[in-house]
Amino acid sequence: MNKVVTFGEIMLRLSTERHLRFSQAKTFAATYGGGEFNVAVSLANYGIPVEFITRLPENEIAACALKEMRKFNIVSKNIVYGGDRLGIYFLETGAGTRGSKVVYDRTNSSMATIEKGSIDWESVLKDVSWFHWSGITPAISESAAEECLEAIKVAHNLGVTISSDLNYRSKLWQYGKEPHQVMPELLKYSNIILGDIDTALFMLGKDKVDPNYHNETSLPVLYDQIFKLCPNLQTVATTLRYSVSASHQRIGGILYDGKTIYNADIKEVTPVVDRVGSGDAFMGGLIYGLLKDTNDKQRALNIAVAACCLKHTVSGDYNLITLEEIENLLSGNTFGEVSR
Amino acid sequence: MNKVVTFGEIMLRLSTERHLRFSQAKTFAATYGGGEFNVAVSLANYGIPVEFITRLPENEIAACALKEMRKFNIVSKNIVYGGDRLGIYFLETGAGTRGSKVVYDRTNSSMATIEKGSIDWESVLKDVSWFHWSGITPAISESAAEECLEAIKVAHNLGVTISSDLNYRSKLWQYGKEPHQVMPELLKYSNIILGDIDTALFMLGKDKVDPNYHNETSLPVLYDQIFKLCPNLQTVATTLRYSVSASHQRIGGILYDGKTIYNADIKEVTPVVDRVGSGDAFMGGLIYGLLKDTNDKQRALNIAVAACCLKHTVSGDYNLITLEEIENLLSGNTFGEVSR
Amino acid sequence: MNKVVTFGEIMLRLSTERHLRFSQAKTFAATYGGGEFNVAVSLANYGIPVEFITRLPENEIAACALKEMRKFNIVSKNIVYGGDRLGIYFLETGAGTRGSKVVYDRTNSSMATIEKGSIDWESVLKDVSWFHWSGITPAISESAAEECLEAIKVAHNLGVTISSDLNYRSKLWQYGKEPHQVMPELLKYSNIILGDIDTALFMLGKDKVDPNYHNETSLPVLYDQIFKLCPNLQTVATTLRYSVSASHQRIGGILYDGKTIYNADIKEVTPVVDRVGSGDAFMGGLIYGLLKDTNDKQRALNIAVAACCLKHTVSGDYNLITLEEIENLLSGNTFGEVSR
Amino acid sequence: MNKVVTFGEIMLRLSTERHLRFSQAKTFAATYGGGEFNVAVSLANYGIPVEFITRLPENEIAACALKEMRKFNIVSKNIVYGGDRLGIYFLETGAGTRGSKVVYDRTNSSMATIEKGSIDWESVLKDVSWFHWSGITPAISESAAEECLEAIKVAHNLGVTISSDLNYRSKLWQYGKEPHQVMPELLKYSNIILGDIDTALFMLGKDKVDPNYHNETSLPVLYDQIFKLCPNLQTVATTLRYSVSASHQRIGGILYDGKTIYNADIKEVTPVVDRVGSGDAFMGGLIYGLLKDTNDKQRALNIAVAACCLKHTVSGDYNLITLEEIENLLSGNTFGEVSR
Amino acid sequence: MNKVVTFGEIMLRLSTERHLRFSQAKTFAATYGGGEFNVAVSLANYGIPVEFITRLPENEIAACALKEMRKFNIVSKNIVYGGDRLGIYFLETGAGTRGSKVVYDRTNSSMATIEKGSIDWESVLKDVSWFHWSGITPAISESAAEECLEAIKVAHNLGVTISSDLNYRSKLWQYGKEPHQVMPELLKYSNIILGDIDTALFMLGKDKVDPNYHNETSLPVLYDQIFKLCPNLQTVATTLRYSVSASHQRIGGILYDGKTIYNADIKEVTPVVDRVGSGDAFMGGLIYGLLKDTNDKQRALNIAVAACCLKHTVSGDYNLITLEEIENLLSGNTFGEVSR
Amino acid sequence: MNKVVTFGEIMLRLSTERHLRFSQAKTFAATYGGGEFNVAVSLANYGIPVEFITRLPENEIAACALKEMRKFNIVSKNIVYGGDRLGIYFLETGAGTRGSKVVYDRTNSSMATIEKGSIDWESVLKDVSWFHWSGITPAISESAAEECLEAIKVAHNLGVTISSDLNYRSKLWQYGKEPHQVMPELLKYSNIILGDIDTALFMLGKDKVDPNYHNETSLPVLYDQIFKLCPNLQTVATTLRYSVSASHQRIGGILYDGKTIYNADIKEVTPVVDRVGSGDAFMGGLIYGLLKDTNDKQRALNIAVAACCLKHTVSGDYNLITLEEIENLLSGNTFGEVSR
Repeated sequence: MNKVVTFGEIMLRLSTERHLRFSQAKTFAATYGGGEFNVAVSLANYGIPVEFITRLPENEIAACALKEMRKFNIVSKNIVYGGDRLGIYFLETGAGTRGSKVVYDRTNSSMATIEKGSIDWESVLKDVSWFHWSGITPAISESAAEECLEAIKVAHNLGVTISSDLNYRSKLWQYGKEPHQVMPELLKYSNIILGDIDTALFMLGKDKVDPNYHNETSLPVLYDQIFKLCPNLQTVATTLRYSVSASHQRIGGILYDGKTIYNADIKEVTPVVDRVGSGDAFMGGLIYGLLKDTNDKQRALNIAVAACCLKHTVSGDYNLITLEEIENLLSGNTFGEVSR
Repeated sequence: MNKVVTFGEIMLRLSTERHLRFSQAKTFAATYGGGEFNVAVSLANYGIPVEFITRLPENEIAACALKEMRKFNIVSKNIVYGGDRLGIYFLETGAGTRGSKVVYDRTNSSMATIEKGSIDWESVLKDVSWFHWSGITPAISESAAEECLEAIKVAHNLGVTISSDLNYRSKLWQYGKEPHQVMPELLKYSNIILGDIDTALFMLGKDKVDPNYHNETSLPVLYDQIFKLCPNLQTVATTLRYSVSASHQRIGGILYDGKTIYNADIKEVTPVVDRVGSGDAFMGGLIYGLLKDTNDKQRALNIAVAACCLKHTVSGDYNLITLEEIENLLSGNTFGEVSR
Repeated sequence: MNKVVTFGEIMLRLSTERHLRFSQAKTFAATYGGGEFNVAVSLANYGIPVEFITRLPENEIAACALKEMRKFNIVSKNIVYGGDRLGIYFLETGAGTRGSKVVYDRTNSSMATIEKGSIDWESVLKDVSWFHWSGITPAISESAAEECLEAIKVAHNLGVTISSDLNYRSKLWQYGKEPHQVMPELLKYSNIILGDIDTALFMLGKDKVDPNYHNETSLPVLYDQIFKLCPNLQTVATTLRYSVSASHQRIGGILYDGKTIYNADIKEVTPVVDRVGSGDAFMGGLIYGLLKDTNDKQRALNIAVAACCLKHTVSGDYNLITLEEIENLLSGNTFGEVSR
Repeated sequence: MNKVVTFGEIMLRLSTERHLRFSQAKTFAATYGGGEFNVAVSLANYGIPVEFITRLPENEIAACALKEMRKFNIVSKNIVYGGDRLGIYFLETGAGTRGSKVVYDRTNSSMATIEKGSIDWESVLKDVSWFHWSGITPAISESAAEECLEAIKVAHNLGVTISSDLNYRSKLWQYGKEPHQVMPELLKYSNIILGDIDTALFMLGKDKVDPNYHNETSLPVLYDQIFKLCPNLQTVATTLRYSVSASHQRIGGILYDGKTIYNADIKEVTPVVDRVGSGDAFMGGLIYGLLKDTNDKQRALNIAVAACCLKHTVSGDYNLITLEEIENLLSGNTFGEVSR
Repeated sequence: MNKVVTFGEIMLRLSTERHLRFSQAKTFAATYGGGEFNVAVSLANYGIPVEFITRLPENEIAACALKEMRKFNIVSKNIVYGGDRLGIYFLETGAGTRGSKVVYDRTNSSMATIEKGSIDWESVLKDVSWFHWSGITPAISESAAEECLEAIKVAHNLGVTISSDLNYRSKLWQYGKEPHQVMPELLKYSNIILGDIDTALFMLGKDKVDPNYHNETSLPVLYDQIFKLCPNLQTVATTLRYSVSASHQRIGGILYDGKTIYNADIKEVTPVVDRVGSGDAFMGGLIYGLLKDTNDKQRALNIAVAACCLKHTVSGDYNLITLEEIENLLSGNTFGEVSR
Repeated sequence: MNKVVTFGEIMLRLSTERHLRFSQAKTFAATYGGGEFNVAVSLANYGIPVEFITRLPENEIAACALKEMRKFNIVSKNIVYGGDRLGIYFLETGAGTRGSKVVYDRTNSSMATIEKGSIDWESVLKDVSWFHWSGITPAISESAAEECLEAIKVAHNLGVTISSDLNYRSKLWQYGKEPHQVMPELLKYSNIILGDIDTALFMLGKDKVDPNYHNETSLPVLYDQIFKLCPNLQTVATTLRYSVSASHQRIGGILYDGKTIYNADIKEVTPVVDRVGSGDAFMGGLIYGLLKDTNDKQRALNIAVAACCLKHTVSGDYNLITLEEIENLLSGNTFGEVSR
């Protein structure tokens, strides 16, 4: 079956083109994206049946987002409608030593004002293999956090695998609660967590780790803390990013399954066409890998890193990369030759 | 002196290009506009010293709006800062029998959440000749209505001429009050009102007029009702629009000063490059005409109609038309010949 | 149920922008369209469940066409794959006295080289209410004509309503057969035919009618000839186009059900944003109207004409118009006012 | 043989797009044009061997102009090189009641600073049938006027037919001479003159005619004055333009051969895509018509008017219209139907 | 004299812009190119008289290709006309680890359906110094292969120098013959061959060489095999490409004249603006170098490598680089400073 | 107070987009820039009150330049008007080994034809802290040089700090004077000079230095020569640029105050979005640093180098970089991470 459901917010993304600064832009390129939607697109591109759940306003901008979902064969039939607006974020694309800038304009979005209980999770998650959510949803509003918890509990009861991308954004979490007040309850049902140790501990209300943890022998000890706090956890993974500049990244990844630390080789990513959504591409690759063979953790991690690298070459939030292209990169071909 | 102050909201406008529908747009053209700002641009282009008052968020999108103001030499020094977001509106440009569509996304804008008393109107309106506001400001929130009333009262006390564009938008007025509960208090200080009789009576809480009022002899009788309700009123004017299609308008205008009805000849406007803001262009022309010669009502009306017509040939919200171009049109030259 | 299936070719359309001539174009706008696909999009936009059947090559250009279908919620699961290429047509957009130009590049397309019997029509047409095809499919190749006949026969046996758009294109029909050798067999199962009398008679192998047929009293006599040749025919309809220039059309329509002639009012269409696909928009409106109420022929015709008119304001091959917009036009509102 | 030579300036044209005003433009569309070059393009498109003579600077911008010439098969081998710059003109494209604006930036161009005697006219005009120049060349500088006179004299001596477009531009003629001091000497060799009577008399130093001359019976009398002043004159012609607006023209033409007045029917031109160069398109049609059949003056005039009308539908300075399209218009087909 | 003739196919190239994937493209950039045409453009830019021979359909798309040729001063007078279509290829521009993709749509092009004997090679090749063809022409169809052989034989008999670019494309060769059945007969007349040893041996029907051949001492031995199979061969050369990624290439070259191995220094090429046609740029440089001084093989190779490097900085298929820019690079200036 | 005045020419810059060569460009991106204007924009962005003095023609192109100034809050009230044209420069954007190209078209600009004495420098420079000019102004014409000297003398007398960017452009200086005949008189009042030693000595009429001067111990000796020739000099500084390619620069800087040599670390700049104006960005940073703390020379130099680096990531002539971004880079953050 392998059906996957992801739940979160989809936004209108308005980005400047050709490295222009906001003040130079006379047009904005318009696409639609968001962490959990981006994961859904990745999976759909790999041939996985996938459904996206969100709340949309009944206006023509949201109708465009809906068309985008359909284009990628993502099921949209359980989306709920209501509220005033689709969230927006503005993106100024950096280069070299000038980083990209995001200006969020997502407060009071339809997703943020979702009413608890408006989604029939029992029905949505029936016959589903995997449920994915991220730390952005509980960060945008109390009711979104509550709806997310509801979904997680139902998924857990139905035996659905649950993955969580921690996705900490300090500019969110404005509704009066701290991550550590909300996230532990949500994460305790997670089977797979994506995020670095510092973020994980912070969200779980623990102290930041000693900077010496990068010592590989100490890593399992640290990860084991997370496993203790999240009793359903089977796998924790994270991208390793070494940012040379906005235009040049070095990307690796690490995965721990409670027993073994898996590493993926660092890959050079230059130039960067668009790095937004590269974490979601990693997540999409990881879910795909684990869905296909839950035992081959090394391959799942490799797919995740390859997907993340290739995402940097694709404009927009989500990853338009095929399995064939991932396989090609995994086979060691990083040469980018013309296929003809 | 002739210094003019206008007060209202400036928004980011995101419009589709080349008559594309929203669902076809991969880019949006970005400009900045709003009724009272548009009036300010018109006046600045005619050489009038003008200041715009609003509330802006402290982010980079608002910084772009600010740059736009400066470009036209509009004073921005008394703008106040705070709140979360710049209001946005999306515009789908129609053609022929398909009208343009506006999707508002302006709730909770910095202007809508303005705090009463945050502007020092005594200082702002010192040495000012004219204050302009429109019915949009009291329509967006209670605090905006209150701040508008405060401004109006100070202007009145300082002997500043006050003009009001009724600008009724049924999609606004969502905060729990009806126009007739708010507008009469605001309009009673107005010296100049722009709007048709139906809208004026509606906003003043009166019944809609008998459809026979278009009989020219009855018009003064109807207008006199407005004069009675607005004791400071000296001039009421309105554009007359006969919409053949989204691409073809016929534009005239009418003005009444309590004694005489003035009419302007109907002009053909085809094609329509952009009709948004054409009412603001009319208002800008009217203020200019009355500022320059308060007694030549016919000329003020003619300028207003010419400015309104020419605005339809200009992309964007505000009117990039020179006095010379208005004079040329007033002299009867509607031929659009190449100037070389 | 009301499920509709349409069958035909979808092509990549490459058009010049802003009225440029081919020799001036440095870019081509790329969309995907074709008569029967365009009808499917219209119906999908009106909320009708619709499936499109065609043959596509297995390459990335065809994958784009597939994404376009999904965007509009058109079922694509029974499309067959094979052959070398997606058909292409180039479009130079005219203006005024200079008409638009089409350069076809569709020979040897995957659809033209479809192998007879490759589609399981029994399965495709099960539980379907309506099947639509056009005279383009039998014009592109012998095997396409054969597959079309197969589909028609199965539809007929299953009691599916069959509509046909005559769509005569003299540049096609290059494979050695004349329309009159192929079309009569295909048309004899049709319940609804779209096309003018001259084309109908020509395709049925009859002489062109006497030019006096425009006399309304003689029209039924002429139409009755068609009814006699097509024993299943219930309705024949045609657009009436009076072309003032490439930028200005006058559009009406006529419908005959064997008893009564129905006429729709002529509407002015100016400017023309894009007239390609306006016949398909008429067809889509007609099918929708007859599906919803087979007895209200006048309303079905009115919807068809309104849809045709509004299509002229939309870029691209297919009609991105809502039922609400059609209703608005039917109610007499041709003013194209801004909706805000 | 029928070889034509035209002589004049070619400029870089920088125009705003989509009716934007200069202050809104972030990009300028770049093309290359100029009256005599535009005539050359028209003739090349009609299959006439044509050569263009000018002076270009040795820089990369001029190299682009040269590539443009070659594209149209215009011989460029006798162009001379030197001077500092290619002339430029900026074009703001109007609409409706707002006319287009030209800002010239052509002073001190390579053509304006041409050195007398730098072109070997004997060699250039050998085996040539027709020489065309316009009133712009003597207007830009004294040396250009002198070189033009030299060309005209050589052409006259070689028996080459000479045509002149009066093309009066009041913003030129800045070098200290008035048209009547320069033009009579140049015009006296002309066999064909294009221009209205007022301009012709003005350039020949005569008084403006009585406004009653539009009376058709008096026209020959007036034209006869021109014939008297220009002893080689055989044909005088002019476009008749009735400008409804920048977007709507009515175009006719008139021709007099010393005996008969020929008129062409008025044609509606709406919308106007680009009217710059429409006079040059008329001239190109006239030369073509007279070259092909010097006796069929009516047909030559009709071709000129048709070419002029069709030019209004083409972006850029020169006329990208085929003979087939002109014939189609001459046959009465103004319907602008899609050719497919 | 130094006149060069090249023979092959010119195609419409439709490429996505700004690294977009096919599924993201709403427009395609349109240019015209093809291996042998690209060589012609290079030579024309270096001032060599050059003619291109091909077969074009009589439609408006081919007319655009023709205009492109003329722009570069390439003689087009012996092109033959007929057939249905201009070949097309779609290009998706890669970046970093994602390579570019080509989708060919060139089957049944006018060039592929060329009829043997349709070109009068005796007349075309009279007074010509050099004839260039590539392995693409015999790969597209049997008749193209035959016409190519005819041209080669005539060139050989006339003593024209013959160069061949092996240009193996596995997606072509679909008409039922293998390269080794066709190419040996064609290559035996070649004086200059461009291609690596593996490809050369494969096309000549020999086994792939032992991978140790990169040992420089063994290279002459391997090349000598080619010389034996091609009795007219004087020079064999190849680019050496080390592909770091789609955005970063290292380019060198090697040349052997039967006696000496010449090497050119490796140059860094980053970023890659467009690498399509870089082999043709090498070929163009090589022909130019050998034409100018057949004895200075090292300089010819250096020019070829420099041209190849610089091509990577130019959008489109062909190389818009001047001799001056090549000389500048040859002199060691790789710094890319602003020239002002 | 800290008010700064800069004096020089502002030009229309027309650049090709996406690395296109001139011959490929169908549009030019239009911005406005010039060395001294660019410095003004930098300072305005850092919050310094700044005024720009120039001479503009009274046309609509110059009006656009004026709007650009106002946008950045640059005072324009003392600009003088007259003359024929705004100077233009064309920019072809290079990549990799192909450098960018500038084609100047600025002769006879309004600034070049400025009339001596047309600016009331006493009034302009009253209450001003700093006056900045560059070697471009005395290079364009004799009257510009004279006006520049006049400004410098008045500034000196008023005790205004004077900075000069040597900015040697060999393509200028066409009016009959050599730099060494003009510059010494101008430079002798300078307090801060920007430029390398070779240029400084050349402009001061001295021999080029021995290439060994890069030995750091000898640098002060060389700089001391400049100090001797410019008695008011306090600081001399220069960027150090190591050009790897048009797309990759290494940027450092050096400053000498007559006592100490200050160095800034070399920074990698790749990719280069736009390097034009990077020297002006350095100058802007240097002035800002010295204005804020004249004693912290090291910090002033560091700011200058950081501003110069960041400018390379910004399209257009002037530097749209904030102080916060400079501080971020100075703090060692060169990673270009996404700010969200």
